[in-house]
Amino acid sequence: MNEQPHEQLKEYLDLRRAKVDEALDRLVPGNDSYPPALFEAARYSLFAGGKRLRPILCMAAAEAVGGTADDVMPCACALEMIHTYSLIHDDLPAMDNDDFRRGKPTNHKVFGEGMAVLAGDALLTDAFRLLAGMFSSGVRHEDLLRAIHEIASKAGFFGMIGGQAVDLDSEGKTIVPETLNYIHMHKTAALITVSLRAGAILAGAQPYRLEALTAYGDNIGLAFQIVDDILNVKGDPAVMGKGTGSDGVRKKATYPAFVGLENAEQTARGLVEEAVSRLEEFGDDARPLRLLARYIIERDS
Amino acid sequence: MNEQPHEQLKEYLDLRRAKVDEALDRLVPGNDSYPPALFEAARYSLFAGGKRLRPILCMAAAEAVGGTADDVMPCACALEMIHTYSLIHDDLPAMDNDDFRRGKPTNHKVFGEGMAVLAGDALLTDAFRLLAGMFSSGVRHEDLLRAIHEIASKAGFFGMIGGQAVDLDSEGKTIVPETLNYIHMHKTAALITVSLRAGAILAGAQPYRLEALTAYGDNIGLAFQIVDDILNVKGDPAVMGKGTGSDGVRKKATYPAFVGLENAEQTARGLVEEAVSRLEEFGDDARPLRLLARYIIERDS
Repeated sequence: MNEQPHEQLKEYLDLRRAKVDEALDRLVPGNDSYPPALFEAARYSLFAGGKRLRPILCMAAAEAVGGTADDVMPCACALEMIHTYSLIHDDLPAMDNDDFRRGKPTNHKVFGEGMAVLAGDALLTDAFRLLAGMFSSGVRHEDLLRAIHEIASKAGFFGMIGGQAVDLDSEGKTIVPETLNYIHMHKTAALITVSLRAGAILAGAQPYRLEALTAYGDNIGLAFQIVDDILNVKGDPAVMGKGTGSDGVRKKATYPAFVGLENAEQTARGLVEEAVSRLEEFGDDARPLRLLARYIIERDS
Repeated sequence: MNEQPHEQLKEYLDLRRAKVDEALDRLVPGNDSYPPALFEAARYSLFAGGKRLRPILCMAAAEAVGGTADDVMPCACALEMIHTYSLIHDDLPAMDNDDFRRGKPTNHKVFGEGMAVLAGDALLTDAFRLLAGMFSSGVRHEDLLRAIHEIASKAGFFGMIGGQAVDLDSEGKTIVPETLNYIHMHKTAALITVSLRAGAILAGAQPYRLEALTAYGDNIGLAFQIVDDILNVKGDPAVMGKGTGSDGVRKKATYPAFVGLENAEQTARGLVEEAVSRLEEFGDDARPLRLLARYIIERDS
């Protein structure tokens, strides 16, 4: 790594992203895969320029507790597939009805709604195939089952989908700040936190370290969503790859709408500081996690 | 069991169905579950009068190889949740666009398309939570991971969703019999066969018995779909709970359309005979599986 934190982070993220992209390309192959339309639709969104934040957090957490990035790679990829499926389904006309994401037409605009639903379903299902398939790697079977159990919990009724359901139910209604907090913690933070936990569990982390990583994850997860809300208000559409201001038009409840832009930025910064403070006892092994926490609030897309 | 095969089967199915319903009610609870709309939508379809064929096959396979029904119950329920999610998504306007199923309005007609997509997603995800959660039961962890791996494989790209994608892609087109066979084997038979295999794997079945159950499953699975096609042509709408003749209206390729009604019925009977012949060496423990095979072609809905 170079000396400047910003350069260090960029280099680190680029290397990791390339590693994840290569693994995903191998695990969800394009050529000669049948049925072609289904694979094409799934791969369209899987390789649409995602930041690979969840897999990178998963690998960084494994390394922070003494494991290796390679050992948790299928899990890291599974988390990205779960994230991608949730974006495909969230963009559907019956949900957020978004035509663009990351500067490209959304999945259903290209492949039709039916195939978009199926591509999402297939990515979600295949994530669990990859996870269970790790039974022949060196990982302890009980740890693997615990990781699968946590990922399914935090992606389902009581996690990501629960958050999205409350979000869907709240559109156009006046909601209280507690409800917005529920949405953010479940829709976004749950999968971010479980990405860290799964990586650490598979690397055999001790309970007190898992706890610290959980606190780190919950804090950066909430900060991440607040920054999303802020970028929606004042981000550059060219950088974001989609229209900004859409939350306001749709009267979607956002953090800045409740507390004002400045307070929202202050809160996000405070959450990141809190997150980083939970990593103290990890030493140098958690350096990437510290850099990643700062990236959460400094990103522009 | 009584003496008449028909009565025996009815009693057996009723008892098993009640057992599965009770377990599902406990595993996907309604009261005080949050978010309420999501649970309500998921439970609406989960308790819409399904035959519970896949869980019953899973339990019967476990018993056929010396295990117990209770030990595989969470897996049996997970299979029903996967089946239910696939029905919710298949009924969506962008897919089969069905307004009724089992005599009730389909999920999206009651809860809206967005919530129907999410309810399906949540049932699929929660199925894997239930499966992984079996790590604290007596089952061998390696067997459990193998079962999860197989279920995810047969529900995903290379199984049920693959079949549905080809089906969706084929609507309104002229397809060859091989394509229809692919659709039937993947869309329907794959989950039926893996229901049997998962139950047997969790009960510690030997490889040669797994093989026999796989052949049994592939045969009754294909027979099941052919009977579905036949019922769609000549079934009683009042018994079916949905309009019949819809496949013809939609120009959907069906087995009877390719070979004629009589040949289709003959084929289904042949498949069931073949399935039953694979159970010879199981003795009395496979009696329910023999009865179930006959039920596949004798059912009227």
